[in-house]
Amino acid sequence: MKTLFYSLLILTLFSSCSQDAGKVTLNGFPSGQWIDLTHTFDENTIYWPTAEKFSLDTVFEGMTEKGYYYSAFQYCAAEHGGTHLDAPIHFASGKNTVDQIPVDQLIGEAIVVDVSTKALVDRDYLISVDDFQTWEIQNGPIPDDVIVLLYTGYDQFWQNPIKYMGTDETGEQAVAKLHFPGLHPDAATWLSENRKIKAIGLDTPSIDFGQSTYFESHQILFKHNIPAFENVANLKQLPAKGSWVVALPMKIGNGSGAPLRIVGFLADK
Amino acid sequence: MKTLFYSLLILTLFSSCSQDAGKVTLNGFPSGQWIDLTHTFDENTIYWPTAEKFSLDTVFEGMTEKGYYYSAFQYCAAEHGGTHLDAPIHFASGKNTVDQIPVDQLIGEAIVVDVSTKALVDRDYLISVDDFQTWEIQNGPIPDDVIVLLYTGYDQFWQNPIKYMGTDETGEQAVAKLHFPGLHPDAATWLSENRKIKAIGLDTPSIDFGQSTYFESHQILFKHNIPAFENVANLKQLPAKGSWVVALPMKIGNGSGAPLRIVGFLADK
Repeated sequence: MKTLFYSLLILTLFSSCSQDAGKVTLNGFPSGQWIDLTHTFDENTIYWPTAEKFSLDTVFEGMTEKGYYYSAFQYCAAEHGGTHLDAPIHFASGKNTVDQIPVDQLIGEAIVVDVSTKALVDRDYLISVDDFQTWEIQNGPIPDDVIVLLYTGYDQFWQNPIKYMGTDETGEQAVAKLHFPGLHPDAATWLSENRKIKAIGLDTPSIDFGQSTYFESHQILFKHNIPAFENVANLKQLPAKGSWVVALPMKIGNGSGAPLRIVGFLADK
Repeated sequence: MKTLFYSLLILTLFSSCSQDAGKVTLNGFPSGQWIDLTHTFDENTIYWPTAEKFSLDTVFEGMTEKGYYYSAFQYCAAEHGGTHLDAPIHFASGKNTVDQIPVDQLIGEAIVVDVSTKALVDRDYLISVDDFQTWEIQNGPIPDDVIVLLYTGYDQFWQNPIKYMGTDETGEQAVAKLHFPGLHPDAATWLSENRKIKAIGLDTPSIDFGQSTYFESHQILFKHNIPAFENVANLKQLPAKGSWVVALPMKIGNGSGAPLRIVGFLADK
């Protein structure tokens, strides 16, 4: 009987240990799958209608006189286009610039709140407190120090600006034609004041919806030094909880925003 | 006796389990310290003497008519300056562009080969096969799928281009005045053919030393589709082995290089 007890105890301990060990290799680096959540920067990359688009100019491309191949380019763009980070300074005086955001605020556990069913039938959909509370009923409380990702389903329209954001026009007059889902200011307040999140991101051009004129959700989040990731890709590939995210912006000194490379990680079970 | 045996067995299993569990929190995200290995992009950022430097232009900064604060900028730069990635296409026709490099090739275990004692007394120092073999004698074989980082000690001179790279002049005539350490082409061949590495990086402006004219180490590594990280910062803060690195470049379509945000991770013991 004693032997059976100890055997069962050992089996229990060993299996719980293996579960952890399955996620970490011998040297401690976890095994699993990395998923790129970033759109490519090229001539089709989506920018705000008033912003300078991404351009890449050739410095040299081909065989050199010395007999080896060489290519090099130079680029220009507005900070706020493509998959990018909004630093709190973008809408909140005195708050963090891109280079001031601590890297561990951009890395960690992630949750995905899927509002695509509602957002795909209403391109002015505002993600509500109720959407987060529904997530919590299904998944438990939003953990502290988490990165919150909002999946509207609009990233599938990335190649088509009219479907993605409501217009493909540029200039001031196009801004009123923007229609895409975003975060309701009440939900921005609720997240900032009732939960402890590191950062927030979504698969549309802006954390405020297209028809916003005062960008209240930006103002609320940034006042709390919570950065935002915009035009994020492939969020459908992450589960509601249990993934990790690493979101690394170009380190622009005093930047209000920056191109962002964001990847998700699914650890092996 | 049997009880003692089982007790010891349980203790052994439990302690080895705890060691792993110490590196992973309950939800699987490892606890530890993230270290930024990236220099900031600003007007002082170091570029190749012939390249366009980083510039940031103000689009708007201050209070808007609507009564909220707003700031936004736009940037221009050559691909190859500051902390950046060289894609294999930079010196190897047909090999990976920036956006083609799989993200898991840029993420993983890292080793640091410290050659600072030799390089700081010889700014034309070439990191040799012997340097890697010495590392292996001290640390064991270079693991497969590792990111190799070379610490020359020159990142301490980042604020002073003359000390960092031998000249602060710009234009074609300045190129011959470049003096900084780099990787010997024989070592590039040895690493590419005898070890299985994901990527390589160092704390100087180029993987080839300043006096290189044919950039052979670039050609050798890139022919093997091994990207390089240049102008990396703070490598002194990583141990010879046991750290992880996440190196995420701006996802420039068809890019030969890109600004890189690179971070190191030291898991809690």
